[in-house]
Amino acid sequence: MTYRVKDIKLASQGKRMIDWAERHMPVLAEIRRELSKTKPLKGMRVGAALHTEAKTAVLVQTLVAAGAKVAITSCNPLSTRDEVAAALAKEGVAIYAWRGETTSEYYSNLNRVLDHKPDVLIDDGGDLIVGAHERKPELIPDILGATEETTTGAKRERALESSGMLKFPVIDVNSAHVKYLMDNRYGTGQSALDGILRATNLLIAGKKFVIAGFGWVGRGIAMRAKGFGADVIVTEVDPIRALEATMEGYRVMSMHEAARIGDIFVTATGNIDVIVGEHMRHMKDGTILCNAGHFAEEVKVVDLEEIAVRKREVKENVTEYALKNGRRLYLLSEGRLVNLACADGHPCEIMDLSFAGQTLAVKYLKEHADKLQPGVYEFPHELDLEIARMKLRAMGIIVNKFTKAQRKYLKTW
Amino acid sequence: MTYRVKDIKLASQGKRMIDWAERHMPVLAEIRRELSKTKPLKGMRVGAALHTEAKTAVLVQTLVAAGAKVAITSCNPLSTRDEVAAALAKEGVAIYAWRGETTSEYYSNLNRVLDHKPDVLIDDGGDLIVGAHERKPELIPDILGATEETTTGAKRERALESSGMLKFPVIDVNSAHVKYLMDNRYGTGQSALDGILRATNLLIAGKKFVIAGFGWVGRGIAMRAKGFGADVIVTEVDPIRALEATMEGYRVMSMHEAARIGDIFVTATGNIDVIVGEHMRHMKDGTILCNAGHFAEEVKVVDLEEIAVRKREVKENVTEYALKNGRRLYLLSEGRLVNLACADGHPCEIMDLSFAGQTLAVKYLKEHADKLQPGVYEFPHELDLEIARMKLRAMGIIVNKFTKAQRKYLKTW
Amino acid sequence: MTYRVKDIKLASQGKRMIDWAERHMPVLAEIRRELSKTKPLKGMRVGAALHTEAKTAVLVQTLVAAGAKVAITSCNPLSTRDEVAAALAKEGVAIYAWRGETTSEYYSNLNRVLDHKPDVLIDDGGDLIVGAHERKPELIPDILGATEETTTGAKRERALESSGMLKFPVIDVNSAHVKYLMDNRYGTGQSALDGILRATNLLIAGKKFVIAGFGWVGRGIAMRAKGFGADVIVTEVDPIRALEATMEGYRVMSMHEAARIGDIFVTATGNIDVIVGEHMRHMKDGTILCNAGHFAEEVKVVDLEEIAVRKREVKENVTEYALKNGRRLYLLSEGRLVNLACADGHPCEIMDLSFAGQTLAVKYLKEHADKLQPGVYEFPHELDLEIARMKLRAMGIIVNKFTKAQRKYLKTW
Amino acid sequence: MTYRVKDIKLASQGKRMIDWAERHMPVLAEIRRELSKTKPLKGMRVGAALHTEAKTAVLVQTLVAAGAKVAITSCNPLSTRDEVAAALAKEGVAIYAWRGETTSEYYSNLNRVLDHKPDVLIDDGGDLIVGAHERKPELIPDILGATEETTTGAKRERALESSGMLKFPVIDVNSAHVKYLMDNRYGTGQSALDGILRATNLLIAGKKFVIAGFGWVGRGIAMRAKGFGADVIVTEVDPIRALEATMEGYRVMSMHEAARIGDIFVTATGNIDVIVGEHMRHMKDGTILCNAGHFAEEVKVVDLEEIAVRKREVKENVTEYALKNGRRLYLLSEGRLVNLACADGHPCEIMDLSFAGQTLAVKYLKEHADKLQPGVYEFPHELDLEIARMKLRAMGIIVNKFTKAQRKYLKTW
Repeated sequence: MTYRVKDIKLASQGKRMIDWAERHMPVLAEIRRELSKTKPLKGMRVGAALHTEAKTAVLVQTLVAAGAKVAITSCNPLSTRDEVAAALAKEGVAIYAWRGETTSEYYSNLNRVLDHKPDVLIDDGGDLIVGAHERKPELIPDILGATEETTTGAKRERALESSGMLKFPVIDVNSAHVKYLMDNRYGTGQSALDGILRATNLLIAGKKFVIAGFGWVGRGIAMRAKGFGADVIVTEVDPIRALEATMEGYRVMSMHEAARIGDIFVTATGNIDVIVGEHMRHMKDGTILCNAGHFAEEVKVVDLEEIAVRKREVKENVTEYALKNGRRLYLLSEGRLVNLACADGHPCEIMDLSFAGQTLAVKYLKEHADKLQPGVYEFPHELDLEIARMKLRAMGIIVNKFTKAQRKYLKTW
Repeated sequence: MTYRVKDIKLASQGKRMIDWAERHMPVLAEIRRELSKTKPLKGMRVGAALHTEAKTAVLVQTLVAAGAKVAITSCNPLSTRDEVAAALAKEGVAIYAWRGETTSEYYSNLNRVLDHKPDVLIDDGGDLIVGAHERKPELIPDILGATEETTTGAKRERALESSGMLKFPVIDVNSAHVKYLMDNRYGTGQSALDGILRATNLLIAGKKFVIAGFGWVGRGIAMRAKGFGADVIVTEVDPIRALEATMEGYRVMSMHEAARIGDIFVTATGNIDVIVGEHMRHMKDGTILCNAGHFAEEVKVVDLEEIAVRKREVKENVTEYALKNGRRLYLLSEGRLVNLACADGHPCEIMDLSFAGQTLAVKYLKEHADKLQPGVYEFPHELDLEIARMKLRAMGIIVNKFTKAQRKYLKTW
Repeated sequence: MTYRVKDIKLASQGKRMIDWAERHMPVLAEIRRELSKTKPLKGMRVGAALHTEAKTAVLVQTLVAAGAKVAITSCNPLSTRDEVAAALAKEGVAIYAWRGETTSEYYSNLNRVLDHKPDVLIDDGGDLIVGAHERKPELIPDILGATEETTTGAKRERALESSGMLKFPVIDVNSAHVKYLMDNRYGTGQSALDGILRATNLLIAGKKFVIAGFGWVGRGIAMRAKGFGADVIVTEVDPIRALEATMEGYRVMSMHEAARIGDIFVTATGNIDVIVGEHMRHMKDGTILCNAGHFAEEVKVVDLEEIAVRKREVKENVTEYALKNGRRLYLLSEGRLVNLACADGHPCEIMDLSFAGQTLAVKYLKEHADKLQPGVYEFPHELDLEIARMKLRAMGIIVNKFTKAQRKYLKTW
Repeated sequence: MTYRVKDIKLASQGKRMIDWAERHMPVLAEIRRELSKTKPLKGMRVGAALHTEAKTAVLVQTLVAAGAKVAITSCNPLSTRDEVAAALAKEGVAIYAWRGETTSEYYSNLNRVLDHKPDVLIDDGGDLIVGAHERKPELIPDILGATEETTTGAKRERALESSGMLKFPVIDVNSAHVKYLMDNRYGTGQSALDGILRATNLLIAGKKFVIAGFGWVGRGIAMRAKGFGADVIVTEVDPIRALEATMEGYRVMSMHEAARIGDIFVTATGNIDVIVGEHMRHMKDGTILCNAGHFAEEVKVVDLEEIAVRKREVKENVTEYALKNGRRLYLLSEGRLVNLACADGHPCEIMDLSFAGQTLAVKYLKEHADKLQPGVYEFPHELDLEIARMKLRAMGIIVNKFTKAQRKYLKTW
């Protein structure tokens, strides 16, 4: 059996979900039309750890159309769409993923993907790449390289590089402008709000909406929360970002202060312990807590468990923690990525750009891996521009072109 | 059997949904605490046609706490939450509602409510009130009056009044500031977007988002679509509203023009035939159509059926119509209210205000019906202010108070 | 001498200013083209008290083109543009106005206008209408009626009506949708910010910007302050408006609280004593105070004078008050209308709409005065629609038209 | 005579303007307090070419307080405030600047500054640095280095570096986050709108507002134009920026298309020939043209002169060009920086940050120049953070601090 999914009979439903996504991913479609003729990935084995939902399936199909064999698992125990996993399984993809994996299942699945002896890894968060280094060093010599999807993963792989332990080149796809400027900001901005709305059915307007971290993800969420009428509060560690947030009209304060007044908290820092027991103790009755950063460690759930006297699920994806002080705090999707666990993840059009980046990065690795030392590489700018141009074309938008005089002027003093 | 619901076993799930809503409806809670002591509705029979979902159940429970007996059905064939209906049935409420009623079932259910010989009607859209007049004239003499929730219903009841056929007083709860300024604008604004996101998983940013009608509902949707990064286009018949829309930075044009460029269309006019075949024929491939007005007649679905060569459901709540010209249009929830059919309707906090208005209006009818002639009445302003004050109190917000000198000044020239 | 202006030699500069305004007032231009043919105001004497700046001059010229003789003064001691006054004087208009009138000069000028025995009064704030009643009762029998431009004036005239003292009909032009929805909101919103920018050269982004009053003026200012990146705080007495402000994402609190944290304060209530000594004492060092309501009584300047130990002009239109507690407060333009005293008043396009209303209201009085009892009248809705249509036409915007079926539907139940 | 200014008698007015600015520049004040004790610039000669207005004077005074001797001229023929220049002259600063310099006067003044044999140059746009290389090579050996304020200047100096001709180190102060993220975006955003409002008194709401260039300056202007209700259109050459603009809800198109529909055009590209005759010919009657980029070459004024049949000043800072096709175009301040020529330049608080950067950069050059090769250097990040921290402190804002666990986490994989 080359797959492990919840229920293979869900395949036709998954197919329909993939079709819908595909229709809204014109850049990947254009790339696929091209690559399915030239088959540049012929014979390659690609091992991936990605949120296995509809948009990801379109990426998988594109890689397959380009000639690759793909083995895939999820990069998050709660983010798999079982229908989609079934559909991919049915199409012959080696897939090991289901919603609600235990921690040990999660790691077993990562190992199963590695067991396919991939030439290239596609990772989202670093667990696959770190896993290959830590648990499957014997595979390393045959790995051409890897690509990474997220800020968090790239940070981990850079840490690996700094310590001299990284053994193959990694293309940081997150460094593509069409990725981090789009996906992190507009993608998460929309989908995090979407997740909160679905989970809670609460009004955003008039709420004190606290966002921890004013990176691209935090900015996107702030923008959309404001767009829904919230009174946005930002907490930061970086003084420059803090200053930017004030200039956008947001209030900036420490989490210590924000904890006392916020109605809804979203973490987006890429760090741990952003909201801890000391904050939770001072929160208002009814406060909503959730996370839009990669790992479920930003809201310190162990602290919540510890200070709570009672815990129960009051609504799908909403856990109520009753504290000794009589107040109740509500944690969404166990502190996991709210946009994926409570909604459908990023909009299709956003993943179109990110996955166009992944596809071109895999192709780039194939073509250049022999020249690349181990290390983390920025996404090649020319590919970045190419993706943006394809997207604008799909939208029917025309940009200006430099005249010769203008080009020349830019080089003069 | 005093109820007809989909499955009574869903009651415990429904109970949990109602509990969540209740927790976020502090104004109704305050009113309930008061009325459950004084029981001002003791012995009254209330017949209601409302979207039977969690927030409505909190209203029903409040009326019951105040002493009333309630019979209820849905005011829309697609808006019932079967879990909630089951929970209400279990609590002994006479309820006749399930998601996906046929047209004849829908009318039968309205009749069933009327068969309870209600003293007061609570209506949402006018079907219950009009039904009483047309099909159950024998009940009229015993009806103290009715309350109406929507712009659309109030319009119909005013038409009934104009033609001299209205037989009892109707309190237009929609005329309450805490209703139409909040529910129509901020409620629908958020929930319509929520519905579109859930149904489509598409990116709003950068989309040409066409809103037909710039009343309170249209304004709310425009505000939130803009807040999500859309390029908002408004169509109107009223030149003053059209002018206001331009001043908000929206583009205003005729539907004839908008049809050719829009990506997503939402109707919010309270009229019929807002988007018709002649518009559909010129729409771009992939266009999304939906409705946030009360009735499913704003997008002329019969035209769509007629000009389509193929029709299929591509996703829950999304029907694809393939036209002869090769383009595909996507209709959400059969043209019915997108916020209720594709999402959970208005946020709890919004319905808290609207239903506080309903409760106080029913009480007002009880107390004043003998002095009221048949006719449509504005919501009493003092009650309006009272609700707003309760809400601000619940939010911990303090407003200024007039000094004597200020009060006097306001009366001088 | 039929005029009193600062310096008649400024006429050519004033002419240029009027020409610029005229070019951006297409509705008034269309009306003028029409009325200069039919001369419906032939032989009428119009007495006006308006901010005598460039846009007002275009109104005056329009009335003259329609056949009227106009006598005019300013409705505010600081709002006259001396160049424009000179230009009008040169064209033969009876004008009595200069920037910086003393209180007694101000009232003398109102009297001078009344001495022309006007058939119709055009007022802005009520001083001319009240003045006619109080100081020139002998003129009343010959006055056909008056028109009023502002919320404040209409309030005073309604107070006069309530007390049974109003002696002729007053058309409340402020009640025109094309007036209060446009002028009060978008006009003041922009021009108040403009005034603050010019007077202070301070950054709005990141400032705590307190707006007293969330009527149409307050809303406009809030919208634009937010649009410039401010953290907007609203104070209100009306709980419904307070609630609306929270839903827009603004913080609402009492002036007592706001006084302690605000950076910039703008009053827009139409009342007195909005910011008083008790508030001023707790303000931060450097706080800016200004007024966008009609009268200079919203910020209680006498309190400021009383609690200050030193006062000096630190910049044109900026007076520094040093308090005993060592803090310095800055009052713009002596608490008078900040948009007129520190900038050029409303944008041309806004006054185009307001003054189109004034012109049609004067014509309407001429045609209907014999049928009108003393009282304050709403602006006729058909004229309102007509102005909006002319404006849309000038902007090249097409609105939808009702079909027969739609018109019929609106009347059905 | 060590100064050339318009009128030394304006000094007291200038003093008052400088005092106002100083009060709103707390970061520079904090730096000044420190440096006036330690005098780290003792004996240095600083030659500057900056917009000589009030905020710049506060920088000059800070450098003087730190021990430097300053000679200064303007970096733009229209941006000098004569009152401020007089005040600086009176304080003994060697200043050569007046509003309305001819081109030859402009260059003479640059030379006069160089004649003071400065150790360090502070430049805004590159004319002083390029001038030193081209016209005063004999001074080069004694110049420790220079600092640069703008994107445009840094681009020119990098071009000089690329060609191997740059002879001393240049600190690109524009590369400071507290500069380009603040000044270019929020500073120009506000001040460009301010300039347009003052020059035109036109309504921004509802206008088609075309911005050429979506760099930091263009973004700031877009944000503020949207905040004032405009329908914003962006033109770009870079596909990634174009895509970002669409995601913000702006329409993106070529200048060819935009020319036909825009009402107001602002250029912010740092390039030449952005709006040329071919565009102008298709513009609507009444179109407003202005520039917010550094040089007056973005709107090609020579084309406008050529295709116009008549030209006249219709308002201060507004020149009307009547074209053969009967349409009239309006150019603000001859195509020069609209925020400086039509308004007061950036808000004080913004220049506080930029000039804190300049001061610390000059001090850095003093301390490190011996170790620096010729070349353009990024602004040191630690100084950047230091300025941001001082600013937050002045605003009373507290940011979070990393815990040990968090710091460690950031380095793990």
